[in-house]
Amino acid sequence: MSRQKVEHMTTAVTVKVFFEAAHRLHNPSKSDEWNVNVFGKCNNQHGHGHNYMVEVIVEGEVNPETGYLIDMTDLKSILHHRVIAEVDHKHLNIEVPWLENTIPSAENLARIFFERVASELPGGVSLAAITVHETNQNSATYCR
Amino acid sequence: MSRQKVEHMTTAVTVKVFFEAAHRLHNPSKSDEWNVNVFGKCNNQHGHGHNYMVEVIVEGEVNPETGYLIDMTDLKSILHHRVIAEVDHKHLNIEVPWLENTIPSAENLARIFFERVASELPGGVSLAAITVHETNQNSATYCR
Amino acid sequence: MSRQKVEHMTTAVTVKVFFEAAHRLHNPSKSDEWNVNVFGKCNNQHGHGHNYMVEVIVEGEVNPETGYLIDMTDLKSILHHRVIAEVDHKHLNIEVPWLENTIPSAENLARIFFERVASELPGGVSLAAITVHETNQNSATYCR
Amino acid sequence: MSRQKVEHMTTAVTVKVFFEAAHRLHNPSKSDEWNVNVFGKCNNQHGHGHNYMVEVIVEGEVNPETGYLIDMTDLKSILHHRVIAEVDHKHLNIEVPWLENTIPSAENLARIFFERVASELPGGVSLAAITVHETNQNSATYCR
Amino acid sequence: MSRQKVEHMTTAVTVKVFFEAAHRLHNPSKSDEWNVNVFGKCNNQHGHGHNYMVEVIVEGEVNPETGYLIDMTDLKSILHHRVIAEVDHKHLNIEVPWLENTIPSAENLARIFFERVASELPGGVSLAAITVHETNQNSATYCR
Amino acid sequence: MSRQKVEHMTTAVTVKVFFEAAHRLHNPSKSDEWNVNVFGKCNNQHGHGHNYMVEVIVEGEVNPETGYLIDMTDLKSILHHRVIAEVDHKHLNIEVPWLENTIPSAENLARIFFERVASELPGGVSLAAITVHETNQNSATYCR
Repeated sequence: MSRQKVEHMTTAVTVKVFFEAAHRLHNPSKSDEWNVNVFGKCNNQHGHGHNYMVEVIVEGEVNPETGYLIDMTDLKSILHHRVIAEVDHKHLNIEVPWLENTIPSAENLARIFFERVASELPGGVSLAAITVHETNQNSATYCR
Repeated sequence: MSRQKVEHMTTAVTVKVFFEAAHRLHNPSKSDEWNVNVFGKCNNQHGHGHNYMVEVIVEGEVNPETGYLIDMTDLKSILHHRVIAEVDHKHLNIEVPWLENTIPSAENLARIFFERVASELPGGVSLAAITVHETNQNSATYCR
Repeated sequence: MSRQKVEHMTTAVTVKVFFEAAHRLHNPSKSDEWNVNVFGKCNNQHGHGHNYMVEVIVEGEVNPETGYLIDMTDLKSILHHRVIAEVDHKHLNIEVPWLENTIPSAENLARIFFERVASELPGGVSLAAITVHETNQNSATYCR
Repeated sequence: MSRQKVEHMTTAVTVKVFFEAAHRLHNPSKSDEWNVNVFGKCNNQHGHGHNYMVEVIVEGEVNPETGYLIDMTDLKSILHHRVIAEVDHKHLNIEVPWLENTIPSAENLARIFFERVASELPGGVSLAAITVHETNQNSATYCR
Repeated sequence: MSRQKVEHMTTAVTVKVFFEAAHRLHNPSKSDEWNVNVFGKCNNQHGHGHNYMVEVIVEGEVNPETGYLIDMTDLKSILHHRVIAEVDHKHLNIEVPWLENTIPSAENLARIFFERVASELPGGVSLAAITVHETNQNSATYCR
Repeated sequence: MSRQKVEHMTTAVTVKVFFEAAHRLHNPSKSDEWNVNVFGKCNNQHGHGHNYMVEVIVEGEVNPETGYLIDMTDLKSILHHRVIAEVDHKHLNIEVPWLENTIPSAENLARIFFERVASELPGGVSLAAITVHETNQNSATYCR
């Protein structure tokens, strides 16, 4: 095992949080025809929705007094405050000020959620990745 | 086993189909205050959404020539034609004619989907239950 | 569909709630040898644990003003108050007064949870079944 | 709760077991053309396969000395002996003597597994249902 | 957040596709005894089968006009054309020309699927990993 | 594809194994007040429990004679011998000698399991990561 010990090892913690929202894929700077061609049924005028799952990975050192990299309850609290409370049961194109002017694709949501969470983590804990699952089959990840 | 054979045994087939839609819980014949009190965040004006899963159980006799109660592909085709194609990527309160005047709760969706599917099944196959899963934790069933 | 309408149809709502607890299968009125023979590793002195999932089915009439059989948030609140808050992060053999003198098998938990919840439901809503899932592969149900 | 106590209540135990097998839907008494028309790609000559999940429900009285309706380990042992050991990693059309002359549809597997298991249960425990899941979306149930 | 912005960040999209097939682990250049010793029940003469799940990760830049790294429908279409349509409901050892002379282990399938898909992706999108899940518990990944 | 071939590609195999245990988050070198403040309900005196899932990733070269990086059955056997048999149906704070003096957080379990497994792998196979899932929503990973 001595070989393993000299390598740089990483500890990560992953938590999952959930929200339910409506969205519409639509670029308002383009024509209706362009939008239908590009987004198909996801461009439907009145929107559709998803049960979103957000998977968050943080990295850092384990505190020997607690055995914790971070208290997962604290991490979920940051996620709730910075993301979930703002988007849950909302229409993402209309009711979330910090998503205005953004097409709410999974890719864009992952990036923006990352930016909103990264700056709130306690010292010594860094955000490694956020994955936004739109369905059980489709997801997007933004990561270092 | 002779005891088992004299009992009336049932064969059932279950399939799952999926759609993604926006909805809003709102009773237009009531005041806004009543709606907020009753439905809370589910009454949000611009709607929210779900990845819906619809679980369908049919019963009947197994055809000895095929070993099938019903061809599951045919059953899914009926479900697609009568339900999924009409509601997928739609706003359930606005864009589905046969849901007009209905609050799109899971309970109501299960009943209406049941009625739309029951009449389309081939002879000898009867619809036993439809369950509409709004999330992994919440569902409603309409059954005989 | 007229055939379906004259039948008695049932509407049911299912919700899932979760708790994490330690337990030990042990009958204190029996010898240690008997207990080891019957319960094997589940009789281990210091207990083991599970992520329990409790699946609850209620039946009743849908209120036409709300489209709800019961508000699922209210149902989860009853479950939390009567069951989850009492057993979550506890040792079931030691710390739950109403489980004293009961072997905390999935079968017994399902029956006792049923009794604790049935009496708390609002008028017109009846408890149909409670299933206690100990693992993804093993569960017990108590039902009418 | 007294109302509940005078009703006849049921306790059930559910376990899940798994096997992986190849099969082909084919009726040898019919023409190749008939088989292709009826079974489509499931009639492919060299077979295809599934990760099968078998869900078994038994009913009975709970033994007050153990809190068990049946020891779930014993139930899984019966299932392993009577079903899983015979079909796991096999071609169901060719290598299972008691499936000869049977089209291995989910419906037929559920019925035959039911018959093989029902007769082996200990006194006071009765088999209520067997469900054979071919995929996460398709299953068949044989039940009393 | 300025610290995060100077780092090189990656966006990835993950989709899952499915097929059902039979296979047999067998090296025809070795003796039967060798094959049974190495592969055990997976060497069974008539094959067994799985519900395979293929998880595909691609990386690239997000198009600001669409918010997409790649249209997930297009990605699934490539996967269907290059992989799923060729292997679904087939016996992998016998009926897939480009798997001839390959032992269809999860490891080999992951590598060969990777090679078949990587060359078909549009400019600016690169294939990062393909994971082949044989069961919920076993998978193999081929990745850059 | 020639571009892909000159890159260094990696093959990995992932397996999942399971155990059920009780634990308590408690640092005996600290006061009771400190422990309650830090660990909350996870510090409960008599412990609680989880269905743990352990996800293990190994990397290496695929043996062309077998198509295997490692026989997954052998890998599971190592995991069973080194980890599962020692912790399953145990109280992690009391009954596992090599966890004495360790707070059994997911982070610490992942690291210690990694160390116990890494040294047992056959030549040419290296341990890349171990993830300990305490629930469906919370996990910790220790990785190279």
